[in-house]
Amino acid sequence: MEFWQEANRKNQCLRSEYSVNSLLLFPTTMDERPHIHATYNEVHTIIKESAAKISQSFKPDVLIAIGGGGFFPARVLRTFFKDPLTKKNIPIRAIGLSLYEPLVDTSAEKIGTEIIRTQWLGADGIKSLLGRKALIVDEIDDSRTTLQYALSELQKDIELQLLDLPESEREANRTEFAVFVVHNKSKPKVGILPPNVPYFAGAEVGNVWLEYPWEALDIEEHDRLAAQDRLKSQEPSNP
Amino acid sequence: MEFWQEANRKNQCLRSEYSVNSLLLFPTTMDERPHIHATYNEVHTIIKESAAKISQSFKPDVLIAIGGGGFFPARVLRTFFKDPLTKKNIPIRAIGLSLYEPLVDTSAEKIGTEIIRTQWLGADGIKSLLGRKALIVDEIDDSRTTLQYALSELQKDIELQLLDLPESEREANRTEFAVFVVHNKSKPKVGILPPNVPYFAGAEVGNVWLEYPWEALDIEEHDRLAAQDRLKSQEPSNP
Repeated sequence: MEFWQEANRKNQCLRSEYSVNSLLLFPTTMDERPHIHATYNEVHTIIKESAAKISQSFKPDVLIAIGGGGFFPARVLRTFFKDPLTKKNIPIRAIGLSLYEPLVDTSAEKIGTEIIRTQWLGADGIKSLLGRKALIVDEIDDSRTTLQYALSELQKDIELQLLDLPESEREANRTEFAVFVVHNKSKPKVGILPPNVPYFAGAEVGNVWLEYPWEALDIEEHDRLAAQDRLKSQEPSNP
Repeated sequence: MEFWQEANRKNQCLRSEYSVNSLLLFPTTMDERPHIHATYNEVHTIIKESAAKISQSFKPDVLIAIGGGGFFPARVLRTFFKDPLTKKNIPIRAIGLSLYEPLVDTSAEKIGTEIIRTQWLGADGIKSLLGRKALIVDEIDDSRTTLQYALSELQKDIELQLLDLPESEREANRTEFAVFVVHNKSKPKVGILPPNVPYFAGAEVGNVWLEYPWEALDIEEHDRLAAQDRLKSQEPSNP
C-alpha cells in the first residue's frame, strides 16, 4: 500500500484544493484538510493484506464491528478469516457508537461523556465472547476516542460476566481483544489503548480527510477523484 | 440495471461453466447454477437507485441490517438517506441471523427452527423503534426465510413493548416496517411477507449463484469475471 505511505509523507505539502467542498460538507467550520479518496477495491485490498498480517499473531474467532464505519471492513475481513477447509465463517457482532466531537478541551478524562451508545451487546452477547479472541473493527482511527471507549466498556462487561464463573476459570475465559482499523491517522491521540492489546492498522495516513466509497453520492466521480489523488501523489513534492 | 434483467431472462439458457468451481465451494453438494459476479460499484449503484425509489413511498428513519449480508447495503443506503440539509445520518441497528438450509422438506411451518439468532435487539433497542419507520436490509432474498423471520420476530417484540403504553397510544407508536434487498431471486419462496409491508428489491435475478465482491479473495479477478459475465449476457441466447 505504497500510496498511503506516500500520501502520509506528502501530507504537509498538499495544498487544500478541496476547501470549497469541505465548506459545503461542514457549514459551521472551515476544514482545510486535503481530501483523499479511497476506492472499494483499495480498501478491500488493504483489508486482505491486513488479515494475512493479523493471522500471524492473533487469530480472531469473533469480530466486533463498530457501526456504521466498521460494518464494511468487518464484512470483508470475515471473508479472509474464513476457514479454507471447513468454509466456516466467524461471527460478527455489531455495536453502535456515535462520537460527539467537542470543539475544544478534549481531554482523556472527558471521553466517556462524548460517546453515545446506539447499540450494545446484551448479557448473552457478552457471554458469547468469553474464552474467545475478539477483534474490534472500525474504518478509521482518528482521535482513538471511540476505540478506547469500545474496548474499555467491553472489557468491563466481560469482567462482570467472569464473576459468575468460579475464580479458577476466570483467567482462561477472559476475552482476548485486539483492534483493527483500515486507516490510522498519524496524529496525537486522545484515546489510549493498553499496550497488551494488539493494534493493527491497514494503512497509515496523515491528518487528511478520508473519503470512503460507501459515502460517495456518485461512485464513478469518486473513483475519478481517487485516480487524480494517485496521480498527485506521484508528482514531485513542492514544499 | 439492464444487466440484471438480462441475466434473469437468460438464466435458463446459461450453461454451467462454473461447475468445477461450485464443486470446490460446496464439497458435499453439486451446485450447477451459473455464477454471476457483482462489482462493488454495481451494488453501490443499485442501492443508490433503490434509495431514490424507496424514498417516494417510504422514508425510513432507522435501518435494520441483517448481518453479515445486510451490513454493506445498509451502510451504503444510509449515505443516500442522509438529510442533505442537516447532514444527519439515520441510525443503523444490526441483528444477526444464520440460516441453516435443510436439504429437503423446507415447509413454511418449519421456518422458525432453521434460523439461529446470533444477535438481536434488547428491550431498549426495540423501544427505540417505536413510532418509527424501519427498513430491514439484506443482500439477497433467496428463500425469503430469513426476511420472514426477521420481520415477524421484530413485529412480535414491538407488540410486547406497545403493551407498556396506554391503548390509545399504541397505534401511533406501532413501528412501520419495510424490506429492502439488493437482489431478489425470481423463484418460489418459502417465507412470506405480509402484503401491507412494502417490499423493495434493487434488482431481480434468476436462480443464479450471486458472487458478491465482499466475498472475493481476489477482487481484481472478481472484477474480470464480472466483466466476462456482462459480455456473455450480451451474446445471443443459444438455448
